[in-house]
Amino acid sequence: MDMAKASIAKGMRDFTSFEVLRREYIISVIRNVFESFGYGPLETPSMENLETLTGKYGDEGDKLIFRVLKSGDFLKSVPENLERNASTWSSLISDKALRYDLTVPFARFLANNRNDIKLPFKRFQIQPVWRADRPQKGRFREFYQCDADVVGSNSLWQEVELMQMYARVFDALLLPVKIRISSRRILADMAEFCGVGDRFMAFCIILDKVDKVGVEEVVRQWVELGVPTEKAQQLIDIIALRGEPAVEALKALGATGNGLEEVSWVIEKFSKFNSDSVLEFDPSLARGLDYYTGCIFEVEALNSSFGSLGGGGRYADLTGIFGLKDVPGVGISFGLDRIFLALEEADLFPDSIQDAPDVLGVQLSEDSAETVFRVVSQLRENCVIAEFYPDAVKLKKQLDYAHQRGIRYVVIIGENELANNTLQLKDMKEGEQFEIDMEDFMENPINYLDLN
Amino acid sequence: MDMAKASIAKGMRDFTSFEVLRREYIISVIRNVFESFGYGPLETPSMENLETLTGKYGDEGDKLIFRVLKSGDFLKSVPENLERNASTWSSLISDKALRYDLTVPFARFLANNRNDIKLPFKRFQIQPVWRADRPQKGRFREFYQCDADVVGSNSLWQEVELMQMYARVFDALLLPVKIRISSRRILADMAEFCGVGDRFMAFCIILDKVDKVGVEEVVRQWVELGVPTEKAQQLIDIIALRGEPAVEALKALGATGNGLEEVSWVIEKFSKFNSDSVLEFDPSLARGLDYYTGCIFEVEALNSSFGSLGGGGRYADLTGIFGLKDVPGVGISFGLDRIFLALEEADLFPDSIQDAPDVLGVQLSEDSAETVFRVVSQLRENCVIAEFYPDAVKLKKQLDYAHQRGIRYVVIIGENELANNTLQLKDMKEGEQFEIDMEDFMENPINYLDLN
Repeated sequence: MDMAKASIAKGMRDFTSFEVLRREYIISVIRNVFESFGYGPLETPSMENLETLTGKYGDEGDKLIFRVLKSGDFLKSVPENLERNASTWSSLISDKALRYDLTVPFARFLANNRNDIKLPFKRFQIQPVWRADRPQKGRFREFYQCDADVVGSNSLWQEVELMQMYARVFDALLLPVKIRISSRRILADMAEFCGVGDRFMAFCIILDKVDKVGVEEVVRQWVELGVPTEKAQQLIDIIALRGEPAVEALKALGATGNGLEEVSWVIEKFSKFNSDSVLEFDPSLARGLDYYTGCIFEVEALNSSFGSLGGGGRYADLTGIFGLKDVPGVGISFGLDRIFLALEEADLFPDSIQDAPDVLGVQLSEDSAETVFRVVSQLRENCVIAEFYPDAVKLKKQLDYAHQRGIRYVVIIGENELANNTLQLKDMKEGEQFEIDMEDFMENPINYLDLN
Repeated sequence: MDMAKASIAKGMRDFTSFEVLRREYIISVIRNVFESFGYGPLETPSMENLETLTGKYGDEGDKLIFRVLKSGDFLKSVPENLERNASTWSSLISDKALRYDLTVPFARFLANNRNDIKLPFKRFQIQPVWRADRPQKGRFREFYQCDADVVGSNSLWQEVELMQMYARVFDALLLPVKIRISSRRILADMAEFCGVGDRFMAFCIILDKVDKVGVEEVVRQWVELGVPTEKAQQLIDIIALRGEPAVEALKALGATGNGLEEVSWVIEKFSKFNSDSVLEFDPSLARGLDYYTGCIFEVEALNSSFGSLGGGGRYADLTGIFGLKDVPGVGISFGLDRIFLALEEADLFPDSIQDAPDVLGVQLSEDSAETVFRVVSQLRENCVIAEFYPDAVKLKKQLDYAHQRGIRYVVIIGENELANNTLQLKDMKEGEQFEIDMEDFMENPINYLDLN
């Protein structure tokens, strides 16, 4: 056996307790907000039937789906002499795949359970997804998505509610953000104005890249798409505006759909319930996903280089592909990995996130081990995280362990302490050590510990 | 597109909020105990390189590993004219697989991070695993494992600690259990006594099935393995004993290893810290996994038909296969699905697990919507789970929704209430309705609600 090969798979990560606890802190903040708004948790399986997933993400997306090989003699399903073509073969030897996002499985769940679900239906889902993307800095093949969606209502109050949820989460994380909002209907007006209403998605896809490629390149590509140069230039100037001036400029251009009205309504209502105006109309926002049909949103960290921390939008018909018609919805998503990096950069993880025990009970001898174990047990009863060093090795080794693990207190019981019915409490941080009466300590250990 | 095909994959499950919250209740109890003992969370990726997983679970296990197809043109790796053989092919067209358990990934993690890890190292891991088993009642292809292991110490205090963790968890769940304990060393003595010490694993595997096949069949198979009939009969009588009588009988048989001593020591120490003797020596215990070398454990629900709720044992060398030598360990595992069923059967899930909001704010008109939204927002600020009905449909429809969702209170604001600056609070459970001054309610809504 080649032992050197025992390495982690490409694009995958291990999370140590340090990382798990910090990730869980973010998740718990998001979750608490989801729950306080009446959203309930849903979990769908990691694997879906292949036909549930394919054809939903465009050709590029389909290529990134991880397919699972059939069990047993999978070659049975392949006709002899079948031409060698990966895509033909893969659909014969694989019938399941790992989920690529949480939206399509949610739609499949809704379609499967249409008779049991009361609309409006609010769910959140926090689970990993998998993409066979080329791994690079900050991009992994397995990562978590944190989504909240509500289906079954066209009311714009849902948009207001979701924006409030964004605001609450980033407030709780102490991370200053701006929420950008626009609408696919406004983009449709723009495309119409440019005479390319029939090439709407292409028009949006070009705009969506403005942050990366710059305004000149967007103008160039729009013109290539058939937009008159003058109109492209006119629009690109508006794209630079924000808020009310952007609304006015688009009105002057002759935006006739109700996209502007809707976005203004959401911003107005939101502002009534949130004093700081973190929600702003941004006509440069496009969002890539082609199932959005109404409002679209994106969250950005202020004073940070992490780009989008989340996004979402309204879709007119999520479940139609699975035969359940006329179920509109709107949802938001949080980017866990980017939020992690942004909190780390701004040093915003609370000190109370602790991945070391509070106390270590060390062993000096077989005789005292049982007494130390009893003390450690009592500490746990008092909700103190306590560890028992299992071997009677040299005290220095045990203290080194406590130090390296970042354990604050060590309980030491030697022959003297056994005889006097006391214990030594060593404070590793302050470098002090106290002899404490065993009975007093056991009665209320918290009194003697300075914990978070 | 064939829409009827949008079904869940075979052996997979969706979990609704009702189920997720109950599963999370169990997980949180287990987790709290793990953490209070100083075990830290570890997460490893869902996918491992194929060679990390294969060859670790025996031929039967290897067949159940879900393999993931390579991306892109996977057929490139297959020589033209290669004979059609599924196992040859699968190792060419697949280089990753879904984890089959949490133990091998943990060993891989330890080997990868040998320089950063301080021993003894305690980790817990609560994540899904996948097995291409034939789905049947209670057996799924994706399920959670909840494992705690400590590596780097031979001390039997670890066994005591792990047994205490079992006791604490099932105590907290209010589920009465018995923990069975034995040792592979005792089984080795038995095999030696029977003259089949060289066929030790086969001897254990036969015994392991005693609950399913009965004692007569075990005797038959032992004899077939080469055990003299008389000795098999002698042993099967001892297998029926428990606790001290079993120890005495095995001693009388000439058990010479220190397995009996170790198990007795663990039981004695455990009993000092746990008044109710839920830990009992059971010589019929064998446990299937062949890497166990010392103590082995299994938890059973009393008065229940759910069999094992968890198990574990000591292994002399977990990481040797990955080139990290001399790292002994011991671990326990909880069977989440079975614990769920046992709690459900005994009706032991706490009432406080709630998957409905406390309050629904309904809409009578555009006018009052904003006021209701404000009330709902205030409720959330006060940690009351509150939902806002997004559409101004008929009141009856909104009340029906509240009823079906199991929502306790409904806030109603009509023209009169707007004029009087009051609100109607309808108690759906008691069928009562009160008019409350808006200011009073907003100041302290909890006063008016009877919540869990």
